[in-house]
Amino acid sequence: MTTEFKTAVIGLGSMGYGMALSCLRAGQHVWGTDINPELVSKFVSVGGQPGALPSQINAVVVVVLNAAQTEAVLFGASGVVATLAPGTVVIACATVPPAFAREMETRCAAEGIHYLDAPISGGSVKAVEGVLSIMAAGRPEAFAAARPVLDACAQTVFELGSEAGPGSAMKAVNQLLAGVHIAAMAEALTFGMTQGIAPATFVDVISKCAGTSWMLENRAPHIVDGDYTPRSQINIWPKDLGIVLDVAKSAGFAAPITAATLQQYMVAVGMGLGTEDDAAIAKVYARNGGLKLPGARDPAAEG
Amino acid sequence: MTTEFKTAVIGLGSMGYGMALSCLRAGQHVWGTDINPELVSKFVSVGGQPGALPSQINAVVVVVLNAAQTEAVLFGASGVVATLAPGTVVIACATVPPAFAREMETRCAAEGIHYLDAPISGGSVKAVEGVLSIMAAGRPEAFAAARPVLDACAQTVFELGSEAGPGSAMKAVNQLLAGVHIAAMAEALTFGMTQGIAPATFVDVISKCAGTSWMLENRAPHIVDGDYTPRSQINIWPKDLGIVLDVAKSAGFAAPITAATLQQYMVAVGMGLGTEDDAAIAKVYARNGGLKLPGARDPAAEG
Repeated sequence: MTTEFKTAVIGLGSMGYGMALSCLRAGQHVWGTDINPELVSKFVSVGGQPGALPSQINAVVVVVLNAAQTEAVLFGASGVVATLAPGTVVIACATVPPAFAREMETRCAAEGIHYLDAPISGGSVKAVEGVLSIMAAGRPEAFAAARPVLDACAQTVFELGSEAGPGSAMKAVNQLLAGVHIAAMAEALTFGMTQGIAPATFVDVISKCAGTSWMLENRAPHIVDGDYTPRSQINIWPKDLGIVLDVAKSAGFAAPITAATLQQYMVAVGMGLGTEDDAAIAKVYARNGGLKLPGARDPAAEG
Repeated sequence: MTTEFKTAVIGLGSMGYGMALSCLRAGQHVWGTDINPELVSKFVSVGGQPGALPSQINAVVVVVLNAAQTEAVLFGASGVVATLAPGTVVIACATVPPAFAREMETRCAAEGIHYLDAPISGGSVKAVEGVLSIMAAGRPEAFAAARPVLDACAQTVFELGSEAGPGSAMKAVNQLLAGVHIAAMAEALTFGMTQGIAPATFVDVISKCAGTSWMLENRAPHIVDGDYTPRSQINIWPKDLGIVLDVAKSAGFAAPITAATLQQYMVAVGMGLGTEDDAAIAKVYARNGGLKLPGARDPAAEG
């Protein structure tokens, strides 16, 4: 089925590049595009198709940063939807408000294009391995058209509804928790340091106790190692928790723990940490508490 | 070794009763005491020793609510320390400030009594099964004297230091995270409801995603079932997060996510939910957001 399947991946960042590789491995013909030409060349060198997108293509996977970029890619001045044949499916993977996903579905449908609301979870390593979780919602035709890409990229596809919206809603729910858990981990780790608990001991003990979380087990080792190479950047969180709070406000819903957490990420951005790994949220606590994290020269150097 | 081992368990609440049973199962002679005589009778009926504590005893396990009760049990008007033979070990399991644990160790040592700073984690089911986690710190003699009780009650004993304090510090770190994770779970679950995500779907999906936590997997099903039978009460959290914030303030450390979380538990207490299961924190969000949780009659009834 996938031998002749033609896929375009728009956005070759850490997630999109991994998904493009997973589609290649599944035997698809895959075109990759990005504003950074080096990423496109790199992808062609490992088997990606060279040159412009062909007129007939099966699936367009949009793996950009946010709603504005998704809309520009689909409907902007050089938007791709106008060039697609009816029956093509757009698989939209950015974290966006549910209402935006519904709007995109409607506008795509007007052009005969299927739209799958398909935010992704799992990180860049799982993207490369083709074992992402995808929180998907859309019409049955959209699911059917997207199946080869879903099979190539995901270990788990949650089918959350028969129209766009619930995929993005569930992603927002997940991001609320993931963002809070990273910051709470940093708050707890540094609080422990004030009581003489070494970060490595914190990880050894708490990862086996009721206070653990997926994010704690994934991110706390970055702090222990003093390694803030960005697997996922601080900058993601003002964006994603901002979406959560915007959607919550529209629904008349108060989310005070999310709101407090967002402020900590804003401090991190203000400290110039936006492009570091999100475990660097610990540096906010270390600066405020006068603590020396592993690998840091001294507390003042964290600022 | 344990055939003649004599243990007293002071406080037969859900955790203490389970630990007393685990000591019985290990072949120890176990006396149980509680302010509620029915719990003592119940324990005697399953094999506990009747009558007053003997003058010679090996270990006293103190499983009460807080520091004040711990101090009263040890050094109050009818405090047990004055009656103990030198070499007895006190195993102190309540969540208390690290400085309080150090003070108790010093006062016990003056009477020739060993003191193990030994907060517990895992819940009442693991207490009965003898597979708790114990965050322990104390002098080598205290560990040695406490070993039969630790072996009977714990699957994992973290040995965190050679004097009292680090056990209680690690417990505070764990409670910070556990308390935040329960409330964040409720915030996310109810936020999802505003977007049409059913609580059962929330659990199915998020427990397999990066947003999961030990507490989410343990507590969210209570909300799905509408079952607020207290396994662990709301009332625990103002106490334990209060300890965290007191210790943090003494250390000049700001913990804003913990502080925001404590306020939500205070709202729950104000709503009269203090003795319900701590998953009832979701009712605070449901009331504020006008949502109907599973099993609830209507949002107004939650208030």
